[in-house]
Amino acid sequence: MPIKEKNWKRSAKRFMHRRIRITQWLPEYNQDKFLCDMIAGVTVGLTVMPQALAYATLAGLEPQYGLYSAFVGCFVYAIFGSCKDITIGPTALMALMTYQQTFGRNVDFAILLCFLSGCVQLLMGVLHLGVLVDFISIPVTVGFTSATSVIIGTSQLKGLMGLKFDSSGFADNVRKVFVHAGETRIWDLVLGLSCIILLLSLRKIKDIKIGGSKPTRKQQIIMKTLWLVSTSRNALMVLTCSLLAYLLQPTDPTAESAFVLTGKLQSGLPPFQLPPFHTSFSNQTFDFTAMCTELGSSIVLVPVIAVLGNVAIAKAFASGDSIDATQELLTLGLCNVAGSFVLSMPVTGSFSRSAVNHASGVRTPMGGVYTGALILLALSLLTPYFYYIPKASLAAVIICAVIFMIEYEVVKPMWRSSRKDLVAMTATFVLCLAIGVEYGILVGVAINIVFLLYPSARPSIHVEQNTTASGISYLMVTLGNSLYFPAVDFIRASVGRAGIKQGASQLPVVVDCRFILGADYTAAKGIASLIDDFHKRKQRLLFYKPRAAVLSVLHGVGLEDFVHVNSQEQLDSTLKDVNNSGGMKYNDVELHNVTSNGQKEKEAEENSVPLLNEPNSHPV
Amino acid sequence: MPIKEKNWKRSAKRFMHRRIRITQWLPEYNQDKFLCDMIAGVTVGLTVMPQALAYATLAGLEPQYGLYSAFVGCFVYAIFGSCKDITIGPTALMALMTYQQTFGRNVDFAILLCFLSGCVQLLMGVLHLGVLVDFISIPVTVGFTSATSVIIGTSQLKGLMGLKFDSSGFADNVRKVFVHAGETRIWDLVLGLSCIILLLSLRKIKDIKIGGSKPTRKQQIIMKTLWLVSTSRNALMVLTCSLLAYLLQPTDPTAESAFVLTGKLQSGLPPFQLPPFHTSFSNQTFDFTAMCTELGSSIVLVPVIAVLGNVAIAKAFASGDSIDATQELLTLGLCNVAGSFVLSMPVTGSFSRSAVNHASGVRTPMGGVYTGALILLALSLLTPYFYYIPKASLAAVIICAVIFMIEYEVVKPMWRSSRKDLVAMTATFVLCLAIGVEYGILVGVAINIVFLLYPSARPSIHVEQNTTASGISYLMVTLGNSLYFPAVDFIRASVGRAGIKQGASQLPVVVDCRFILGADYTAAKGIASLIDDFHKRKQRLLFYKPRAAVLSVLHGVGLEDFVHVNSQEQLDSTLKDVNNSGGMKYNDVELHNVTSNGQKEKEAEENSVPLLNEPNSHPV
Repeated sequence: MPIKEKNWKRSAKRFMHRRIRITQWLPEYNQDKFLCDMIAGVTVGLTVMPQALAYATLAGLEPQYGLYSAFVGCFVYAIFGSCKDITIGPTALMALMTYQQTFGRNVDFAILLCFLSGCVQLLMGVLHLGVLVDFISIPVTVGFTSATSVIIGTSQLKGLMGLKFDSSGFADNVRKVFVHAGETRIWDLVLGLSCIILLLSLRKIKDIKIGGSKPTRKQQIIMKTLWLVSTSRNALMVLTCSLLAYLLQPTDPTAESAFVLTGKLQSGLPPFQLPPFHTSFSNQTFDFTAMCTELGSSIVLVPVIAVLGNVAIAKAFASGDSIDATQELLTLGLCNVAGSFVLSMPVTGSFSRSAVNHASGVRTPMGGVYTGALILLALSLLTPYFYYIPKASLAAVIICAVIFMIEYEVVKPMWRSSRKDLVAMTATFVLCLAIGVEYGILVGVAINIVFLLYPSARPSIHVEQNTTASGISYLMVTLGNSLYFPAVDFIRASVGRAGIKQGASQLPVVVDCRFILGADYTAAKGIASLIDDFHKRKQRLLFYKPRAAVLSVLHGVGLEDFVHVNSQEQLDSTLKDVNNSGGMKYNDVELHNVTSNGQKEKEAEENSVPLLNEPNSHPV
Repeated sequence: MPIKEKNWKRSAKRFMHRRIRITQWLPEYNQDKFLCDMIAGVTVGLTVMPQALAYATLAGLEPQYGLYSAFVGCFVYAIFGSCKDITIGPTALMALMTYQQTFGRNVDFAILLCFLSGCVQLLMGVLHLGVLVDFISIPVTVGFTSATSVIIGTSQLKGLMGLKFDSSGFADNVRKVFVHAGETRIWDLVLGLSCIILLLSLRKIKDIKIGGSKPTRKQQIIMKTLWLVSTSRNALMVLTCSLLAYLLQPTDPTAESAFVLTGKLQSGLPPFQLPPFHTSFSNQTFDFTAMCTELGSSIVLVPVIAVLGNVAIAKAFASGDSIDATQELLTLGLCNVAGSFVLSMPVTGSFSRSAVNHASGVRTPMGGVYTGALILLALSLLTPYFYYIPKASLAAVIICAVIFMIEYEVVKPMWRSSRKDLVAMTATFVLCLAIGVEYGILVGVAINIVFLLYPSARPSIHVEQNTTASGISYLMVTLGNSLYFPAVDFIRASVGRAGIKQGASQLPVVVDCRFILGADYTAAKGIASLIDDFHKRKQRLLFYKPRAAVLSVLHGVGLEDFVHVNSQEQLDSTLKDVNNSGGMKYNDVELHNVTSNGQKEKEAEENSVPLLNEPNSHPV
């Protein structure tokens, strides 16, 4: 009994360590880690504030929703997350996908989408669908992030130029920027461009080395300061611009501000309440079903793409450790479900902020707690001051964050390494821009899978004329490793053609099945037709060394004329047998006996081969 | 010059024979074939007429559109088609898919869909996308035809019971039949049920054997008559019922008929005109783009599913000959494009009528010409008489045609042979019923592909501890045949785990690459990370006998620390080398030289292996 209990306890502990990650690292938390996490957490917090306001605008929501979305994920991820660098919150991509749902509707759709995304992610986690993430290859990821960066960048042009219009997608946005170019507000543009130049310069100053390899204490302090300024450049820039806008604000309240400002924000913490399961706007009422219908495929696409982004970031920072995709799914699901109770839009891991977190020297996921706390503080105290943030400065922050996500540098190695992958990448990139990121990803994955499946559909087939020990000629047709449905017709036609080509001689055909690892029902039916074809032509057809797994599938469909041999000697005697009897013997009982006897021997032989490409046989 | 010209002529002739199939068989056409084709063609013609009227109704169109759709395909297929048995025309499935587009709209959408389907099929043919048909397995086909049969069968219940309502899909239809059951018109139900019983009985009488093995001349005539009655039972039944309805028609024109009748048909041949590129209904005007938007994904799904059906039928009747999917695509495309000029809805090969054609002894595709001619005759002369066809009798004809398409008998062999396929079949069947045939097919294909891809994502990995000739222990990790993106993380994690498991001993790890046939960019990046992981752990990692194709992909991404060996001796000396030097040497120039020298040797060895699973290497 006590041993059993101990086992139970041990497995419970293992489960807890795996699923509630904080139990792994909290016992070893110390002052040192606290300090590192604190610095990193606060820096991330200062970065997320302007980003959150900007992304909420990008999603077509009022700016405060960005802050509402930014804190819950930090807390939840600190408890369950597996990667210390990741910070959960609103991202440009999620904002963009949310925008397609809120465009012309109200905020309730964004919040319900957040809730449903969380539910879908939890469901996927429970079903262990993390394996799906493996099907998103680097070319697709690169095409997708690059396209997203371009889309986000151009979507910020209007903010940068002080323009005001609604747009629906990349092409429409570019068109409208040109159409409205005449209405550009000169001071917004000047502010925006100055911000961009400053941000790009500040980004570089952290790499400045002063004092060579052995800097003095003073030089070290200067370098540390430069690094701090560089890392918190987004927050500093927004702060400075807001101060400028505040100082330039005309005293006459009816006069126009110099810049387009963020405007009045809802002050205070968001209410804690159930996500909206019904809503109404412009005199229409939507119940839960109607809202889901409106959200459509994004209920699946948003969570899947959120996970994709999150796992991609986790992979980037994991530096060698394998990522538990299931754990990431569950954590992200919890973040979204919890977020939807405080008016959050869909959230996921942010690439730019995770990079800031990493660069700021975070040690454990506890950093997120400090970030979250800072945002809560800002929500309760700072919102009145957000009024003065110029929109052009937020646009500049976003543009400077995304231009480095356009990954043109992978093109060259990809060209040298695998040009098919370049096709997948280009298609993903172009389609993301042309018809939408969701479709771009789907088509990219589809192209990748087509390349992957091609060998299954058109396996190699090798034909040669052989002679047995006793001098009987036969045709050996060696099949590649696929005997699954896409290849069936091809194999049937190829083997048939090989048999016919011999013309009048009508040599027996032996199909070499040694390399075939598995088969399915369609294949079995195809083999049945193949046997039939040969039967009609009165040509002999034998199968050489099929594996047990293949045999069981073939026998399942009730193949009557299936004759297989398991050694060269058996092949020789079988062919001789028929030659001597001078005719065709298909349902020869004796032959069947021979094969049944040979079966055991064959299986033993097969099991000694280490390479059995069957699932769940990983002795690792 | 003359030789060149001759070659040119020969290849032109071959091309013509392949693409314009009538040139193959028309020169050998004779009186004998004419007679057979004539009988079969007329029988099919009599079958198609009631079916066409019924299917047009099923598609939500006026009945004459069924006849408009029925003749062009017959003529076109006679010229280009490759399978003598197939008759092109309206089918229950196409009707069902058209209905989803015309429901609440007008006939112009159906005709434009026909035109666009044809264009898509032609495009697919030109791009040789016939290979896509291979990805539709038997389980998916079975699940799909069975579900379609159930849907069509239930959709005819309202006609059988004399009910009148609009429904949108299977579930809605079943519900409404129950809701409206109280309004059942008793005489329609009686007529419908009688028709069904009679049709099922007539179906059987052709198998009656009179006079044993040697029938007298009289007995032969009786049997031939029974066969003829049985084969033309649909036409006979509709004829009889119409006559009955005509006789029972009240003389008072305001009085109600005993049965729900087909009603007034537009008389005469359809006009020859361009398909409608704009339309208007209920005060809305639609231009071409708007119409295409309304048609949506069906512009791709309808032609694909039409081809699927057609190729499935061709396969069923080809009896061993391989099907030229490209030719079928092109022919079907032409049928649809031509049809759209005479107000046709989308058409494809009809399974039931092709079976009738086959059973009636057709010899060449010329049979279709006689069918087409008969329909043209009916359109110009017989339409006034179609008024009296009771709808219940048409419903009975369709129900009797589809109930035999429900293929429950494959379940048992599929269970024995391959249970994964049973999963795909059941999912396809259930989803076709629950959310629509298009999605059902797509999900079925997706499930099939997932099963197909699983070994690519989770290849087998076998680990064992070996010792070289000079006694150095190492870990041999043998990989399965996939080094493509879905497997990368799995392989990286597995190899990494295998290396770590050895604990302090830190044995060198040798990855056996002999079975890996190819790689891609994502895999190369994964291998780079793997090498990095080992580098950090200061553990040795070598690759054993990678193929040239794999090597070129890996080198493309610029792997610097990649060390591979091509023989046991090389492995021994490489491992010894490092052991003696007492430390790790990763960028060892000498090692690289060794591998470069071994390369040539290896490639020669590899080329002697017959089985190279690379596309385009079919020496057949």
